[in-house]
Amino acid sequence: MKKEEHILIIGAGLCGSLLALRLAQRGYQVSLIEKRPDLRSTDIAAGRSINLAFSDRGIKAMNLVGLKGKAKDLCIPMQGRMIHNLGQDEFLSRYSGLESEYINSISRTDLNALLLDEAEKMSNVSIQFNQSCTDVDLQKAHATFEDYNTKETQTIKADIIFGADGAGSIVRKSMLEDHLFLFSFSQEYLTHGYKELTIPPGENGSFRIEKNALHIWPRGENMVIALPNLDGSFTVTLFLSYKEGEYNFKNLTTPEKVQEYFDKAYPSAAAHMPTLTEDFFNNPTGALGTVKCSPWNSFGKVMLMGDAAHAIVPFYGQGMNASFEDVVVLDEMIEKYEEDWNTTFLEYQKKRKIDTDAIADLAIDNFHEMKEHTAAPIFQQKRKLETAFEQEFPKEYASKYRLVTFQEEIGYAEALEKGRAQDKAILNLLAQNKIDAQLSLQEKLVLVNQETQEILNEDAVLKVK
Amino acid sequence: MKKEEHILIIGAGLCGSLLALRLAQRGYQVSLIEKRPDLRSTDIAAGRSINLAFSDRGIKAMNLVGLKGKAKDLCIPMQGRMIHNLGQDEFLSRYSGLESEYINSISRTDLNALLLDEAEKMSNVSIQFNQSCTDVDLQKAHATFEDYNTKETQTIKADIIFGADGAGSIVRKSMLEDHLFLFSFSQEYLTHGYKELTIPPGENGSFRIEKNALHIWPRGENMVIALPNLDGSFTVTLFLSYKEGEYNFKNLTTPEKVQEYFDKAYPSAAAHMPTLTEDFFNNPTGALGTVKCSPWNSFGKVMLMGDAAHAIVPFYGQGMNASFEDVVVLDEMIEKYEEDWNTTFLEYQKKRKIDTDAIADLAIDNFHEMKEHTAAPIFQQKRKLETAFEQEFPKEYASKYRLVTFQEEIGYAEALEKGRAQDKAILNLLAQNKIDAQLSLQEKLVLVNQETQEILNEDAVLKVK
Repeated sequence: MKKEEHILIIGAGLCGSLLALRLAQRGYQVSLIEKRPDLRSTDIAAGRSINLAFSDRGIKAMNLVGLKGKAKDLCIPMQGRMIHNLGQDEFLSRYSGLESEYINSISRTDLNALLLDEAEKMSNVSIQFNQSCTDVDLQKAHATFEDYNTKETQTIKADIIFGADGAGSIVRKSMLEDHLFLFSFSQEYLTHGYKELTIPPGENGSFRIEKNALHIWPRGENMVIALPNLDGSFTVTLFLSYKEGEYNFKNLTTPEKVQEYFDKAYPSAAAHMPTLTEDFFNNPTGALGTVKCSPWNSFGKVMLMGDAAHAIVPFYGQGMNASFEDVVVLDEMIEKYEEDWNTTFLEYQKKRKIDTDAIADLAIDNFHEMKEHTAAPIFQQKRKLETAFEQEFPKEYASKYRLVTFQEEIGYAEALEKGRAQDKAILNLLAQNKIDAQLSLQEKLVLVNQETQEILNEDAVLKVK
Repeated sequence: MKKEEHILIIGAGLCGSLLALRLAQRGYQVSLIEKRPDLRSTDIAAGRSINLAFSDRGIKAMNLVGLKGKAKDLCIPMQGRMIHNLGQDEFLSRYSGLESEYINSISRTDLNALLLDEAEKMSNVSIQFNQSCTDVDLQKAHATFEDYNTKETQTIKADIIFGADGAGSIVRKSMLEDHLFLFSFSQEYLTHGYKELTIPPGENGSFRIEKNALHIWPRGENMVIALPNLDGSFTVTLFLSYKEGEYNFKNLTTPEKVQEYFDKAYPSAAAHMPTLTEDFFNNPTGALGTVKCSPWNSFGKVMLMGDAAHAIVPFYGQGMNASFEDVVVLDEMIEKYEEDWNTTFLEYQKKRKIDTDAIADLAIDNFHEMKEHTAAPIFQQKRKLETAFEQEFPKEYASKYRLVTFQEEIGYAEALEKGRAQDKAILNLLAQNKIDAQLSLQEKLVLVNQETQEILNEDAVLKVK
């Protein structure tokens, strides 16, 4: 029986752990190897509870492996963006017109631990930590690892290797350096970096600001956001230009200057951040990069998954959801093509790559939308209209955000195409004052849908052969 | 005097030779170092006269260094695309409505030799061949070279280094591997490769097919093109999928199969290609890649130019023209910022990168246009209308091709934005039968310009802040 094939998964982060569990459920022999120590028994993340936005595409994957309920227990619902404009009252901009549609804040560590616990329960999964991958033989599907503590090396021979080793993937690097096939590759950095900070819990674990929202302080070129944690704290992230503008990572070199910047630009956040300057200088400055590449598999034996194949910037809250959806789509292809791995990989990429390319581009769009547009009147008008459409006509209308986040039955590429056309249609109609206040909501919807269809038709003509 | 600065240029191809000449004319001390032997005294290119499309942006650069006249002597004018559809008579699709606007076929070797000859005449230029760059110290501006014959190494210390070492740049590689700054990088391959073939001269150096045209045999997924050489021959290039379709590089493994494919798909070319199958198996299969990166300079001391900074696919005939235009734009910045190299480099990239990104994208558009659209009726209708506009209203209308190729006073980015909007406008008007045959040419132009402006306005709304 082919299920005796030995599958090696490099990387026991969110994607690798989920994949290990799913392939084990399908009956394969799985080795899961991780560079870092076991996050369940170490204190790496102590004092820093890093959280993620978890939504329908990710939930679908957790449902596939039977863990939807346990994941939900770790979630804090976020109903919308709480927008803090300077000198104004904050207001909530809902993610959807429907109360039942919201995203969740979840701890990366808790979710990863849940997946590792479940994978470990399977008799056909073995897990090793502290093993750093140093070399991959793509044609033979062998990989070599060095033990962090003993410095001893081991070579693992597998039938199939999955590289789920993240944005800085060593498996991908070995593909880039192999000259036996043409490997398209891109890494693109934004002009901004990020810094994680914190709002601690209030008295008795209470939340100092609204619990059920993703908070944004948009300031044009830069912004601060905050997501809630179960303990009452918020993980705060500053997105700031490396060297442009009055304040930037290059010139924020003293506690006084950092405090001055926050007091001036983000006073309503700074008021809740007693450890602001300590956090600022203790925590590293992270880069924001997008990675795309192709082909994802080499020789039908080694395959990239998750961030290793498509790292994206965090602004759509879809990084982990997209990686989880990878596992769902791969699982469909395994079902369809049985154990012909080469065909499985080719068909998977054929279906999947247009979608991961699309979410990468959407995430960059959202960087600009969040820091600039959320504060602009015309975008607020647009959001208001879309929310009304979704409330009154939930089946007839879905905004770009809703298509991407809550309609997991369509791919990201379709969501991008339709969502961008809608955005353009509404903004044009608003800019030209064509949405008359006299019109009923239904008449406005008809107008928007007509304009959207025209834009889609006009774009299609360029594709005529 | 700062002109005593020592400038090292790595790569004595077209871009490096032109840059060396220009910087020497400005008074700098220039060392020009090339990996290959001197192309003026070796026979590398014997039997393969590789030619390039040379047009207004490139001519402007040759004019800057005083070599426009000498370059023109090497040129064969090409008035348009000679389109060879299967089973039909060929027809000429002009590049412009104006007779005075045409592109040229020029020998890469002859043009490079001209530049080397002129650079060598300058007392402040030294040239070395057969020196392969093995290492670049970006912070110190030192570079190490190995001599091809003696295997001896030398390290050259410069004040400023230019990497003009082509699409596979070693200088760029050293930037990618440096972890002291974030380097955005992409290499993207097309699904197609290319193979150079030949149509030999006819009797007494005559041309077997029309001399003053760029010939295209468009076949949907694949195509053949041919450009004339001064000796009466044509350099023929087959662009073919690596593995898709009935015939591809993977399955064309015997002379019989190659002959069969050409007889079937390109009979009017094959009739003039007595050495087709020999050429096919003697010449290498080339890959078609696009390279983009940023920043182009590191530490204000090392700077990428030409293909090293932005390699593009050949379908717009702009690769060499874009590299030459680099030198013109850099020269303007040197003039403006005197000898502050860091500012010169930053301002150069700020102005230049949007344009080189644009020509990279335009070149990929043209791949599809050449192999598919040149044969499609709606695109022929569009071309006919545009040619009529340009003939009657040369100041009021310029097609995308004309904007890119003959209007060197505007950048590629502006040409792309305006050209794409015009294409979309005309195709939409044609598809919707809105261009009534009853209308005068001027009325048609008004209609096209209105539709174009609407498209540009609608696109602009998404950029509102």
